[in-house]
Amino acid sequence: MAVHQLSFLYQDLIESIIESLDKNDQETIRTKLLRHNPAELALVIEALPHDDRSKVWPLISTTVQGQVLHHLRDIARASLIDELEHDSLRSAGENMDVDELVEVIDDLPEKVAKAVIGSLDEEERRRFDTHFTYAKGTAGRLMQTEVRTLRPDVTLETALRYLRRFRLSTQTDSVIVVDRHNSYLGKLFFTALVTGHPKQRVDDVMDHEAEPILADTPIGDIARLFEQRDLVSVAIVNQANELLGRIAVSEVLDAIREEADRTLLNMAGLEEDEDLFAPILPSARRRAIWLGINLVTAFLASWVIGLFDATLEKIVALAVLMPIVASMGGITGSQTLTLAIRGLALGQISSSNSRWLLFKEIAIGGLNGVVWALVVAVIAVLWFGNVGIGVVICVALIINMIIAALSGIIIPLVLDKLGIDPALSGSVILTTVSDVVGFMAFLGLATAFLL
Amino acid sequence: MAVHQLSFLYQDLIESIIESLDKNDQETIRTKLLRHNPAELALVIEALPHDDRSKVWPLISTTVQGQVLHHLRDIARASLIDELEHDSLRSAGENMDVDELVEVIDDLPEKVAKAVIGSLDEEERRRFDTHFTYAKGTAGRLMQTEVRTLRPDVTLETALRYLRRFRLSTQTDSVIVVDRHNSYLGKLFFTALVTGHPKQRVDDVMDHEAEPILADTPIGDIARLFEQRDLVSVAIVNQANELLGRIAVSEVLDAIREEADRTLLNMAGLEEDEDLFAPILPSARRRAIWLGINLVTAFLASWVIGLFDATLEKIVALAVLMPIVASMGGITGSQTLTLAIRGLALGQISSSNSRWLLFKEIAIGGLNGVVWALVVAVIAVLWFGNVGIGVVICVALIINMIIAALSGIIIPLVLDKLGIDPALSGSVILTTVSDVVGFMAFLGLATAFLL
Repeated sequence: MAVHQLSFLYQDLIESIIESLDKNDQETIRTKLLRHNPAELALVIEALPHDDRSKVWPLISTTVQGQVLHHLRDIARASLIDELEHDSLRSAGENMDVDELVEVIDDLPEKVAKAVIGSLDEEERRRFDTHFTYAKGTAGRLMQTEVRTLRPDVTLETALRYLRRFRLSTQTDSVIVVDRHNSYLGKLFFTALVTGHPKQRVDDVMDHEAEPILADTPIGDIARLFEQRDLVSVAIVNQANELLGRIAVSEVLDAIREEADRTLLNMAGLEEDEDLFAPILPSARRRAIWLGINLVTAFLASWVIGLFDATLEKIVALAVLMPIVASMGGITGSQTLTLAIRGLALGQISSSNSRWLLFKEIAIGGLNGVVWALVVAVIAVLWFGNVGIGVVICVALIINMIIAALSGIIIPLVLDKLGIDPALSGSVILTTVSDVVGFMAFLGLATAFLL
Repeated sequence: MAVHQLSFLYQDLIESIIESLDKNDQETIRTKLLRHNPAELALVIEALPHDDRSKVWPLISTTVQGQVLHHLRDIARASLIDELEHDSLRSAGENMDVDELVEVIDDLPEKVAKAVIGSLDEEERRRFDTHFTYAKGTAGRLMQTEVRTLRPDVTLETALRYLRRFRLSTQTDSVIVVDRHNSYLGKLFFTALVTGHPKQRVDDVMDHEAEPILADTPIGDIARLFEQRDLVSVAIVNQANELLGRIAVSEVLDAIREEADRTLLNMAGLEEDEDLFAPILPSARRRAIWLGINLVTAFLASWVIGLFDATLEKIVALAVLMPIVASMGGITGSQTLTLAIRGLALGQISSSNSRWLLFKEIAIGGLNGVVWALVVAVIAVLWFGNVGIGVVICVALIINMIIAALSGIIIPLVLDKLGIDPALSGSVILTTVSDVVGFMAFLGLATAFLL
């Protein structure tokens, strides 16, 4: 009964689906899909080649199609929606909860979106509109708006009787307590409700200290709060302390995964939603932009080298050693950059410790610069039988590695101050700086001292 | 009352602590620290320069020092422990819960560890030992072993009376149900307990389908299960289905953050616990290794270039254009590599879709190769007034970008099959391949056709 070999669960499923598709055996696929929840089905769809996705879609039970759509990543969802019939999309939309619909609505064709919104009742429509008063990626947009609440002055006995009338979501730890004006007061943990005496009042056993979160708080900040305080859910309020909804830990798990994904993908110049199984042309187009930006920086490095073509013509060993100067600077810089990006994400870098950090990274860059510069120098002297080349590459490497370490701290700090994501543009700027400085130092010193 | 400006919370605290340390105002620090929980205190300590950490430590309440130690990252913890008195460590250790102690024990000095283990009572000692029958990073090592359970045959009324006798952890959603032999049967959600009728039996309202997890399951797999199924806690069992403990979502949040951190840091050749504020010498030593490995690959590239020194001597423009060949191959490869690493981590890549993926990435590499190679060729012809150079760099770029895309898929797949983390070694191998292929193609073609 226990779960075995989790990591192969989806791989096996994905393989068997592809096999069944080849055999045109739709019944087997339909049966297999029934055993999985919408989040799992979304993962499976994303792992299918693009052409197979719309073949599998009709085999998913129509009652969960809406939730599957909601769980897909943005790019995968948009491309699937492009291929589906309007009728199928409309019924999927109408089977969605309002809070799910909010995340999907922008991707639906205008006609379908209008029809789905038109099918909402007055209360649903009010909840739907509330979400859109808050920006994308904030608590207000992501929260669940269907929330059971209790009043502080009822007894636990009454509270229990009241709650029995509803089907509560199982994965939760508490009920939110509000006053008669819907103002947030605190949380009643189920453990308190369960272990308290029936005659006690909610007010006596509730947690008055449990802080709510303002609806305009970014989800990344909320994720950090969940991590630091081991939370399972928080209440979301507006500036007037009125309860608007709640955010559960499952939403936070997704947010942390997405944030980590974004950093990882951005550092490689990929869009946050880049989809491994997306069709070729759009993927090629998205990645071409990053290649183009990098080409500009590569030409900058070429231009620097071109300044010294007379030197290179005379000492061809310099051309041979150039990749070493560029590589050591690049590695030093990207190590520092990665640490700085993570430090910024965790909120650990402040103005009072950044000076110390700068000093530390320069010291590390300098130390490693000296050590590895000497190693490279010795090898260069032995290889080319020329002491001058050894001295020049040694000094150039030390300069380049110190500047790279310095840039690895300063570039992300400046980008962060300017409100630009350092994960996305940090590495290109860093490579440019370390290539230009490295080639300039190496070829410049050679021109000055070796000719 | 609501939480404002979360992202600046720690930065402000860290800055004020550094200021107070400068003024030697320990009382202010002590008061400020009292307002934060152990996880937050650990984050603050990690953000302090190394010398300040042991100054702040004695200002933390002794009752939570143990938990703070438990929340620190491995490297930060080890270096702090090095600086603390044995007596202080011993009292911190004795204030820890058994499950926390398990994670810290290896870092304590042997004498202190023995004393702390000696202070455990028999039941605690048994729980302590259970953890160590499972490998690091598995459920068995990370689980909480102090778990309240219920029998299936009691009424909800009796269950409630039983649970009232204990102080249950607030952040949980369920109680585990076992038979008289401690075999796992399922979970009783608090919502079911609360909304069920007092005369119903646990068996009637419990979730029989909630699967337990084997104690030797890696935490990364468990994290994926939590994400896919929106779980708050799971029961951990041994092969005989006996209940050993439970893992809560807070542990999973930490695991996801750590896994993401590891991928990000490993891709830059940093250790997973690398600490931004660690002292200079050990940091320099750890990073030197990665620089050394990269130096070997850089020399390999140099060696390839050296094979063509006669050609370079005659056509110095080739030396000027070399960075462009290397850079475009590197970018193409690392984009594919990053997507493949993420796909592997999410379990989306299987043997049946990997061939399609390979085809797709080669197509993207080839398409972008052709487009950008033409751009580069035109610029090169205009720059150097030599059509031959343009043709050579065009063909070399197309070859290099296709090979880089191919390597970006094949390298991580092979490393993964061999049980090596592709995030750590993937990028070095990829850079080596793309540099060697790029320079070989570019300079080789030039030697064959331009001399």
